[in-house]
Amino acid sequence: MLLNSMKNRKTIRQYTEQDIPDCLLNELLDVAARASNTGNMQLYSVVVTRDMAKKEELAPAHFNQPMVKTAPVVLTFCADANRFVKWAEQRNAEPGFDNFQTFIAATIDSMLFAQAFCTAAEEKGLGICYLGTTTYNASPIIDALNLPHLVVPVTTVTVGYPAHDPAQPERLPLEAIFHTEEYKDYTPEAIHQLYKEKEELETNINYVKENRKETLAQVFTDIRYTKKNNEYFSEVFLEVLRKQGFL
Amino acid sequence: MLLNSMKNRKTIRQYTEQDIPDCLLNELLDVAARASNTGNMQLYSVVVTRDMAKKEELAPAHFNQPMVKTAPVVLTFCADANRFVKWAEQRNAEPGFDNFQTFIAATIDSMLFAQAFCTAAEEKGLGICYLGTTTYNASPIIDALNLPHLVVPVTTVTVGYPAHDPAQPERLPLEAIFHTEEYKDYTPEAIHQLYKEKEELETNINYVKENRKETLAQVFTDIRYTKKNNEYFSEVFLEVLRKQGFL
Repeated sequence: MLLNSMKNRKTIRQYTEQDIPDCLLNELLDVAARASNTGNMQLYSVVVTRDMAKKEELAPAHFNQPMVKTAPVVLTFCADANRFVKWAEQRNAEPGFDNFQTFIAATIDSMLFAQAFCTAAEEKGLGICYLGTTTYNASPIIDALNLPHLVVPVTTVTVGYPAHDPAQPERLPLEAIFHTEEYKDYTPEAIHQLYKEKEELETNINYVKENRKETLAQVFTDIRYTKKNNEYFSEVFLEVLRKQGFL
Repeated sequence: MLLNSMKNRKTIRQYTEQDIPDCLLNELLDVAARASNTGNMQLYSVVVTRDMAKKEELAPAHFNQPMVKTAPVVLTFCADANRFVKWAEQRNAEPGFDNFQTFIAATIDSMLFAQAFCTAAEEKGLGICYLGTTTYNASPIIDALNLPHLVVPVTTVTVGYPAHDPAQPERLPLEAIFHTEEYKDYTPEAIHQLYKEKEELETNINYVKENRKETLAQVFTDIRYTKKNNEYFSEVFLEVLRKQGFL
């Protein structure tokens, strides 16, 4: 039953050597293209990487996370207004798609397409991993994949047959992310209650120790997602949007 | 079989009066929270609207599309760094999440969560419709839902039991959105081939006539997604990001 498999899913970072046949990959992308999109303009593209030389070119942009080279297939999902604009210009129409709102619509389209792909892929026994590094290092990815004006990579998914069965990571309780009628801002006591279970997990206690921090939150703010990096990569990505014509 | 139902899915804009029980809605959101997210920070929230007075408040922000009032449930998916930042500050950590890169990560997280929700909901016989108006009129939605600093609505989904069975809209052929190893930019001939089938559909031919335009592309550029509106709503949304603290 689908809901059970969606509920039990996990990100897979290790893959067997089994390849993914083109016909299966195409079927999954075809299914994914049935996801909703803005005005049926389909403002997205996906670039499929199977070639090892190309994976090696992409790897540094993903801080050399091993999945880029060990997965049989790497998918780069792109916000793409280029195809639509070329069509419009060829049809005596004057597109005004070189702006931020189009980038946001195209990003949303790309993500719905990517997530529909991932659910379909997992249903077929594949494992997937999203790489959040894509928007940090969009510029070298644009170069490696030869992305034109009005095309920006927004996420990358590595795909293959699972070679491990990791424990499922925790999630916040549903009441943490759920608001009824209006957003109910969090009191200190609510925050404490909602994050308590996460903080008390042995894996997270060890994670704090390994990183020589006092609290789990500090691992995120001091090591994984620092203010300095967040601000640096914000400027870099805004510059990419300007260069690609969306800002 | 899931892949078939995903392949045959359609956006549903008309709903029966049957309500969605809380337990089902919670189950679907719980399943959806299993979608991948950035660093397991879950930078999203969902606001559930069932109350008619609140729907009436939201409706103008969605240009009074009837689904907002006729669907039993309206879900507003929000990029949310507020909860995480409050937690970090309470745990002796110094978050630097008031920036564009965090907004993008939170938007991606929200969209994967939203799309996983929609797939799960459809599997349970519900119908959904995404409203792209959310990023146009984020400001009145922020007011209506009382969204704090570092929270921005990015999409809205109306949900209910289907009261119609519309024809499935066309999609571009897979080769239009698919690139092997590198982005292959589109020649005029390729554009013509890829859009031909879409343009020759009777529904689209009629759509061009009804709108008194010469080409299908013009319906998009002159009526539905004009340069003027795209640029206006880009400025408005950038201002929302500044006001909410992401830019």
